[in-house]
Amino acid sequence: MSWSQKTFALTPRTRGCYLVTDEVVQSLPELKEYKVGLLNLFMQHTSAGLTLNENWDSDVRLDMTDALEKIAPEKAMYRHDAEGSDDMPAHIRSSLIGVAITIPIKDGRLATGTWQGVWYCEFRRSRHSRKVVATIQGEKYH
Amino acid sequence: MSWSQKTFALTPRTRGCYLVTDEVVQSLPELKEYKVGLLNLFMQHTSAGLTLNENWDSDVRLDMTDALEKIAPEKAMYRHDAEGSDDMPAHIRSSLIGVAITIPIKDGRLATGTWQGVWYCEFRRSRHSRKVVATIQGEKYH
Amino acid sequence: MSWSQKTFALTPRTRGCYLVTDEVVQSLPELKEYKVGLLNLFMQHTSAGLTLNENWDSDVRLDMTDALEKIAPEKAMYRHDAEGSDDMPAHIRSSLIGVAITIPIKDGRLATGTWQGVWYCEFRRSRHSRKVVATIQGEKYH
Repeated sequence: MSWSQKTFALTPRTRGCYLVTDEVVQSLPELKEYKVGLLNLFMQHTSAGLTLNENWDSDVRLDMTDALEKIAPEKAMYRHDAEGSDDMPAHIRSSLIGVAITIPIKDGRLATGTWQGVWYCEFRRSRHSRKVVATIQGEKYH
Repeated sequence: MSWSQKTFALTPRTRGCYLVTDEVVQSLPELKEYKVGLLNLFMQHTSAGLTLNENWDSDVRLDMTDALEKIAPEKAMYRHDAEGSDDMPAHIRSSLIGVAITIPIKDGRLATGTWQGVWYCEFRRSRHSRKVVATIQGEKYH
Repeated sequence: MSWSQKTFALTPRTRGCYLVTDEVVQSLPELKEYKVGLLNLFMQHTSAGLTLNENWDSDVRLDMTDALEKIAPEKAMYRHDAEGSDDMPAHIRSSLIGVAITIPIKDGRLATGTWQGVWYCEFRRSRHSRKVVATIQGEKYH
């Protein structure tokens, strides 16, 4: 049984959903050493999110951003607005989407489906640098 | 410390929410061997979901399906519509509900609450076969 | 590799979102013994939730409660209403927010971000006592 834990920063982005599977996997070369295990990705922020969704058509990411704007609209009345109108809706979207995902590892690779990718959703308008704690646990190859 | 990992397919279903606790537990007889641990269920798809909710009144599952239709409606304008009007809303609902859950194992059983069950939510209209990677880790009985 | 698992009850609360980081950490003094690991918090209920969000401005928690009321409104038509008008919306909010979170442990502490805290969201109007199964796994200090 082995553990690997590290913190890395995602490429800063403005509001939108981004496919970051390759960026994540390249930050974690030790994944290849695990025969079986789990990867926990935990974003240390409250106005962004991590989720799994389609890895092919980039329109899905644009439609998701629009849908979340309708579900938790910027043009609503919020008490918490000191940082601007995009602040509170970002917190709401963050708890709806979630900031952490756990992905199984099988034979040195993430056991995701064919069409599944890791998405980083940025809910603030301005470019932010988001830190992710990656915790890998499992059995390594002998 | 032991690991068990396997992939199984859920009984194919059309759109709706389904209680699959028994189906999951029957697919994982090795659960009984673990004194303490965690079960991670990870669905390898982007237009369905796994969640925990009420295991008693089936009306809760019907109401949930209706509520998700209101939250991410089929009758909206989406860029991504090649596979039909139920495609993009399915992706949205999938990220809202999530595709993975982690459940504690205690004394050889899932440590869920009295009224808690595992739900498979299918967001596409047509019948789909959904694969789930089940990863169990923990301490077995000696 | 070590495991600790215990069940504790959160202070009963009426509808709203509450910052419970301190309450959780005080219930889990064994966290300090782990050099690296993961904490899984699993609520055994279907009309409440656990999430991570802002730990500073309490207005964020009030705005979140209001936002969830708009997303899954009490004043809608539900089949499942035997326990009152707040019953079914509570189930919906529970699956949107989720009942479980997994947080990395680093150097004997939760590796949460500066502004990140654990929230208990109660979706029923009356005061409820909610049980949480806490499962810690990791490598202890020697």
